[in-house]
Amino acid sequence: MLMLTRLSFLRPKLSFVNVAARAILVPFLHQFGKSSQVARLPKRFQIINVSVPLRFFSCSRPFNMAGGIRSPYYSMGEHTLAVPAALFALNRNRLVERLRNNSSVNKDSIVFLQGGNEETRYCSDVGPVFRQESYFHWTFGVTEPDCYGAIRVSDGASVLFVPRLPDEYAVWMGRIAPLESYRERYQVDEVYYVDEIVEKLKESQPSNLLTLNGVNSDSGKNCREATFEGISQFKVDNTLLHPEIAECRVIKTDLEVQVLRYVCDVSSRAHIEVMKRIRPGMKEYQGEAIFMQYCYYNGGCRHCSYTCICGSGNNGAVLHYGHAGAPNDKTIADGDICLFDMGGEYYCYTSDITCSYPVSGKFTEDQKIVYNAVLAANRAVLNACKPGVNWVDMHVLANRTMLSHMKAGGLLKGDIDDMMKANLGATFQPHGLGHFMGCDVHDVGGYLSGHPERPAIPGLKSLRTARSLKAGMVLTIEPGCYFIDHLLDKALADSKLSQFLVPERIQKFRGFGGVRIEDDVLITETGTELLNTVPRTVEEIEAVMAEGKSLKIDVPPAYAGKK
Amino acid sequence: MLMLTRLSFLRPKLSFVNVAARAILVPFLHQFGKSSQVARLPKRFQIINVSVPLRFFSCSRPFNMAGGIRSPYYSMGEHTLAVPAALFALNRNRLVERLRNNSSVNKDSIVFLQGGNEETRYCSDVGPVFRQESYFHWTFGVTEPDCYGAIRVSDGASVLFVPRLPDEYAVWMGRIAPLESYRERYQVDEVYYVDEIVEKLKESQPSNLLTLNGVNSDSGKNCREATFEGISQFKVDNTLLHPEIAECRVIKTDLEVQVLRYVCDVSSRAHIEVMKRIRPGMKEYQGEAIFMQYCYYNGGCRHCSYTCICGSGNNGAVLHYGHAGAPNDKTIADGDICLFDMGGEYYCYTSDITCSYPVSGKFTEDQKIVYNAVLAANRAVLNACKPGVNWVDMHVLANRTMLSHMKAGGLLKGDIDDMMKANLGATFQPHGLGHFMGCDVHDVGGYLSGHPERPAIPGLKSLRTARSLKAGMVLTIEPGCYFIDHLLDKALADSKLSQFLVPERIQKFRGFGGVRIEDDVLITETGTELLNTVPRTVEEIEAVMAEGKSLKIDVPPAYAGKK
Repeated sequence: MLMLTRLSFLRPKLSFVNVAARAILVPFLHQFGKSSQVARLPKRFQIINVSVPLRFFSCSRPFNMAGGIRSPYYSMGEHTLAVPAALFALNRNRLVERLRNNSSVNKDSIVFLQGGNEETRYCSDVGPVFRQESYFHWTFGVTEPDCYGAIRVSDGASVLFVPRLPDEYAVWMGRIAPLESYRERYQVDEVYYVDEIVEKLKESQPSNLLTLNGVNSDSGKNCREATFEGISQFKVDNTLLHPEIAECRVIKTDLEVQVLRYVCDVSSRAHIEVMKRIRPGMKEYQGEAIFMQYCYYNGGCRHCSYTCICGSGNNGAVLHYGHAGAPNDKTIADGDICLFDMGGEYYCYTSDITCSYPVSGKFTEDQKIVYNAVLAANRAVLNACKPGVNWVDMHVLANRTMLSHMKAGGLLKGDIDDMMKANLGATFQPHGLGHFMGCDVHDVGGYLSGHPERPAIPGLKSLRTARSLKAGMVLTIEPGCYFIDHLLDKALADSKLSQFLVPERIQKFRGFGGVRIEDDVLITETGTELLNTVPRTVEEIEAVMAEGKSLKIDVPPAYAGKK
Repeated sequence: MLMLTRLSFLRPKLSFVNVAARAILVPFLHQFGKSSQVARLPKRFQIINVSVPLRFFSCSRPFNMAGGIRSPYYSMGEHTLAVPAALFALNRNRLVERLRNNSSVNKDSIVFLQGGNEETRYCSDVGPVFRQESYFHWTFGVTEPDCYGAIRVSDGASVLFVPRLPDEYAVWMGRIAPLESYRERYQVDEVYYVDEIVEKLKESQPSNLLTLNGVNSDSGKNCREATFEGISQFKVDNTLLHPEIAECRVIKTDLEVQVLRYVCDVSSRAHIEVMKRIRPGMKEYQGEAIFMQYCYYNGGCRHCSYTCICGSGNNGAVLHYGHAGAPNDKTIADGDICLFDMGGEYYCYTSDITCSYPVSGKFTEDQKIVYNAVLAANRAVLNACKPGVNWVDMHVLANRTMLSHMKAGGLLKGDIDDMMKANLGATFQPHGLGHFMGCDVHDVGGYLSGHPERPAIPGLKSLRTARSLKAGMVLTIEPGCYFIDHLLDKALADSKLSQFLVPERIQKFRGFGGVRIEDDVLITETGTELLNTVPRTVEEIEAVMAEGKSLKIDVPPAYAGKK
């Protein structure tokens, strides 16, 4: 409401545009299959502030809304979700609203971002399918490589700069889209070529360009900072933008949540497909293949959110198993627990779900003890999360719950408070409870300045945020219990920890691998909304797997030369 | 044979090693399912020159072959091909043999290569699954990132340098392999840590390091040249290695051909799977999803050789369709021709197969004219290829054959010789006939110095090599016929070309898209071996597609919110 007032004050003649922009958005919300959707928009977004200024740069033509409102969207077909371009208009407006509220930001500044580039592998002419840089995606939703984007802070006017393509492009790469089509598809105010950046920026006379510079606390790497030939002709500030845009990304709009809900749904169904089709004797990567096929074929997800982790047996205890050095290539043995951590990605919105289950389809009593300990931890956190709750406390709650159940199962002995004081939890769960999720699977904003710093002790130091929860945050809840020789040996050799272990029981679990139960949740005003839907209790899992037993499974025969 | 003599002359005491190495190799050849395999090795490789020097650097321990010969290999399971490490030992020996025959190369040189690095996407901590840099793969077959490798020219002794991993790696990424296990898996003589490069190289006192520097003629990009902290302490020559190693890669050994045969077989079966399951109303990318799933699940191919090109209808005329800007997202209409250009990749060996067929399963008369024109061109080249034949002549032969059939089909008129003089072929096929294929899908060595230069005229200038054929080369044969408005308009406006066009017939084909028929072939001593096996005649295709009609196809329902 505040923003609308501000805009109205600044540009009273444009108020009709906000109404029009709302008209763009609302039909989409109804299409999403929930008629209550409009009402469910957080209050601050119920008036959609899609500002459409008449001119950004001096030479631009007027934006005419009278010619019929279009509703451009991204979709991979009728069986997939239609995502309106308004999602990104809203993100841009939230960003400029924050920037305008920051007294250090000159109102004549222009936010200037560079998108990702198409890459090829070393000297070859092939490479992975292009996936947009996440900040740029969040801001513009542009699927093509090699673009730039600008937003004027004063009024939120937006401009895309796209590559000027040679005629030959049409023969090799497809139709060269006219600038106007970019403007329509992405609902920006103006579009120019990349080679016009300097000229167009000069016409606009910004006080400075706000570029992106800051460290990602998950990777330790610096953000992609925009650069172009001639940038030295402008005053650049690279300190102000990063904390503001990262904070915007922490809180998801309802439009973003819709996409996350969708991709979690697709990924849930894909996990169930794997659960039904996995068999002893299969290679772990065959589970990965089933998952990826389901997400792409049925959900339009060309990418996964991260490399699939398909650990079986002992590999379940390798937290980031599945990479090129450990490529999901073990044969799954009868009796193994499968720990499959996989998530599809749709239009650069991620999912991150882990299911753990015995390949046999029936839990043993020992498997049940560990599984139910982890599930209890997961559910305790799910029930406790709501705005105001601190994430570190949730990690501690998960640990306490898991340890209590392991004690009840006879693996541990002694007082739970003492175990917690000794930080026994980190022996069984060396990773943090979960992380933000959005345009990156480990989404940004975990340790922004002004928020709690990273804790120092094992387990807790792996937490990807130490913040208190707010409505609109999306996080994973992923407690796990692993039997890692290296950590068990350390604990057994340390009297502060060994006093709690029942060695003969622990010994039996060596080689067990691990269990992780990972859910994706939205923090609501009152609690949580679970975004994924996979079987979770022992009974649910066994029922789904029993159903799967009736399916005919392709078993590739041994290779004996070209057929 | 020459090389064995040289080695024997230089190191007579090591001749037993060659025998032992042959013992490593031969059991694999029998496993490949063709007992005639050993006899089929090109003569120059029938004695496998896997030299095993006693010491490379001064501190190395003796290499003991007496303890039982192991046969390390790469495999993704029994349903996939086992590839012996001897493949790479043979590649290394071929390379040092060439270098020793080059009078500019000092015999105390050491070839020094840097492998690929694990990459993440901008500031995020995720990225595509690591795929090795191709020159490094060809030389060492190492699947892990962040390695270096050295080969002493004098005797072919080989050393790998691998990253020293922190203890924490075991928890997150998996077991830390001891150096010895690298030595065994990759059959190199010695293995050290990357942080020991300077020390170990100094002990060896090389006259200079031969690093890789040269332009890839397909991408125009420079090769990855090795660099490490302290390289300035060595004399480096970066001019000698590139032409020699690239030339080695042009001629495939039988061990390499076995891998190419395998991956072409897997990809052929995957194409047939798509052919059987494709239906009008499906999205193009659903064909891609079926293909990738088949290659991975059934063939252990985690990567494809390139982004799948799944054009239907008019998109078939976009040569590199399928990239992020044109992501196989059209709905396939009844009546469309599908042009599906896809290849799986196994252990960094590629395949590249295009199948074109009507989604309906039945060719119309017009579709038959175009299809059979392209097939005739393909088969004319396949029958004509043999050592000594020039590739440019094959391109011309394909053009001539295609134009003749198009004339017979009533699309063209006039004299074929005149059409050829006017270069009418380039109007319908703006790309080259084919390319080398190996560790890269557009494999290196197309335009090395000392070989014919790139032709200048349209169509021919897109040829990726102008060389004469030699036994051991592997190439694609991929004539195509496309109806591209932009090129048709140009031809119609040009009296030199328009005289050959039958406008009312050509007009009918606008929007048709295109047909490409792409095969992968080995040049043998007497002709060719076709590496892929897909239905090619109209009758074969219609029969396979008719068979597919009886399969139950998953049709994802329209998305209506989370289920």
